[in-house]
Amino acid sequence: MSDSVKAFRKGREKMNDRILSTGNLGIKRFFGLDSRAYEPGALDARTKELLGLVASAVLRCDDCITYHMVRCVEEELSDEEILEALNIALIVGGSIVIPHLRRAVASLDELRAEA
Amino acid sequence: MSDSVKAFRKGREKMNDRILSTGNLGIKRFFGLDSRAYEPGALDARTKELLGLVASAVLRCDDCITYHMVRCVEEELSDEEILEALNIALIVGGSIVIPHLRRAVASLDELRAEA
Amino acid sequence: MSDSVKAFRKGREKMNDRILSTGNLGIKRFFGLDSRAYEPGALDARTKELLGLVASAVLRCDDCITYHMVRCVEEELSDEEILEALNIALIVGGSIVIPHLRRAVASLDELRAEA
Amino acid sequence: MSDSVKAFRKGREKMNDRILSTGNLGIKRFFGLDSRAYEPGALDARTKELLGLVASAVLRCDDCITYHMVRCVEEELSDEEILEALNIALIVGGSIVIPHLRRAVASLDELRAEA
Amino acid sequence: MSDSVKAFRKGREKMNDRILSTGNLGIKRFFGLDSRAYEPGALDARTKELLGLVASAVLRCDDCITYHMVRCVEEELSDEEILEALNIALIVGGSIVIPHLRRAVASLDELRAEA
Amino acid sequence: MSDSVKAFRKGREKMNDRILSTGNLGIKRFFGLDSRAYEPGALDARTKELLGLVASAVLRCDDCITYHMVRCVEEELSDEEILEALNIALIVGGSIVIPHLRRAVASLDELRAEA
Repeated sequence: MSDSVKAFRKGREKMNDRILSTGNLGIKRFFGLDSRAYEPGALDARTKELLGLVASAVLRCDDCITYHMVRCVEEELSDEEILEALNIALIVGGSIVIPHLRRAVASLDELRAEA
Repeated sequence: MSDSVKAFRKGREKMNDRILSTGNLGIKRFFGLDSRAYEPGALDARTKELLGLVASAVLRCDDCITYHMVRCVEEELSDEEILEALNIALIVGGSIVIPHLRRAVASLDELRAEA
Repeated sequence: MSDSVKAFRKGREKMNDRILSTGNLGIKRFFGLDSRAYEPGALDARTKELLGLVASAVLRCDDCITYHMVRCVEEELSDEEILEALNIALIVGGSIVIPHLRRAVASLDELRAEA
Repeated sequence: MSDSVKAFRKGREKMNDRILSTGNLGIKRFFGLDSRAYEPGALDARTKELLGLVASAVLRCDDCITYHMVRCVEEELSDEEILEALNIALIVGGSIVIPHLRRAVASLDELRAEA
Repeated sequence: MSDSVKAFRKGREKMNDRILSTGNLGIKRFFGLDSRAYEPGALDARTKELLGLVASAVLRCDDCITYHMVRCVEEELSDEEILEALNIALIVGGSIVIPHLRRAVASLDELRAEA
Repeated sequence: MSDSVKAFRKGREKMNDRILSTGNLGIKRFFGLDSRAYEPGALDARTKELLGLVASAVLRCDDCITYHMVRCVEEELSDEEILEALNIALIVGGSIVIPHLRRAVASLDELRAEA
């Protein structure tokens, strides 16, 4: 149903490198700001990754959801915590979120199987 | 261009079952409300499926469009009726809807050929 | 909570006239296509206005909702029919639609009081 | 710049009551599911309100932002925590979020002044 | 119909100062990147402001439209050029853009009258 | 990562022909207006294609991005010009645009290799 998480990670890394090689300074700095936004501060990394996951889900971006799902698993969030966050995304964003929810849970299952 | 309608139906059923198996009550109840919204009431099922189709098209969700297209065909809406609804989606949502319109018509053709 | 329907109608008419006076032919033709999309054809005007209402609601455009609400009342749709259509918009679009639902029902009440 | 928080709360309560009085069962049940999604479970109420705030911000719904800002203040989140969540919304959603960020901070200031 | 351009400018400046005073470094840096994106480079400032205007219009953000309209007028773009750009936004984004088009042209008229 | 540009062009042409064969006049006229919006007028074709590219990127439509990327290359825009336009899309639309940026640059690379 979705690209496998492995294929996503490989394609993401390859094209991010390609984009950073173009020399466009604005894009490079944006990528830096993007990384820093999820570093622990007043909020811890776990909470920030859930925020990234829910923002990605309501905006319906599969690649962004996969990226934050990988990070949520790395931060050792439980299935129950992740599903409660996705339930908020579903309520806020509506049934239009459901196809992305299906792919999100498939990615989560794939990540759990990988471990 | 799009996943075939058959593959969509199979993947949808499989992952919906998986999601309902997680035990998250909020998501389960949302799925129930979603189904009930399209049951006949003051408006008949035909009109409600067209509403679902147009809402899905302007929000540009291919899986949602495919789902409601299947239902529109089951409710025996004609090609002319479906195309007039899709034209409203195109006017409201703009040219950004066109790629989804292409996939919607491909799904409709596939459903008519299947019959 | 919302601009009154009367103020909306006046402002809409004034600025549409202003835009058509600019001489941009593309915009003028778009306005024509927009009007024609809601004329009765294979689908009747009642159904088309409901489609316009739901598309406007899931895309969360208050002015568009008000416009189609006026037309729905002109087409003699009942409160029950309008609310079932808005319920579909709520399910598809999620809780983010609720503030617009509040303003939509306020407009409907204003239109019923006016009659 | 924004409606005051007080006016928002009053208008919200009034129109929610009006909507619930219509007798549309689907809408009523959706309102119930919406409330329950933010109740503490595997995630605590603080985290859930931040998720609601960020989802509202990236979807650019001022009323939804105001609602969750009120709740974030009730849950005793600090300015630093709220701003880090809003920074994630800004990075994910882009500069298009900035006008809503301006109104969000104005609401936060109003809520702090009220206390 | 819209806040006057003057009121927009004043409110924007006041709240931007307030936001920058919070000490959140991520938001501050984002504001810097945002400004730099429109500085002349391989593309001139005129083209970049039109890009900002069209992006704002299809994403339906009135404050963002007003901001870029002010800049388009400062860059001495003609009404015809601005309207052709807005026509592209209308075609891409659909009739849902029309209420914002009305407010955009009202802002343009206000800016021309001011000069 | 994305469908190749060649496959996109072939699928687009085939389904556009199919849609135009349905006899729905509204859709046919919309397609005509869409084409005319990018013809040179007060703004030249190069600028209009960049406007189409940025509008498509912030609305996150891969097929629309590919279409305008093909046209930008035909109009002999340089990589630097295209990247500065995409940087504006990234700033306006946020990190949610990044997966589309990856596919946009992959399409650009494919088009340059083809030449």
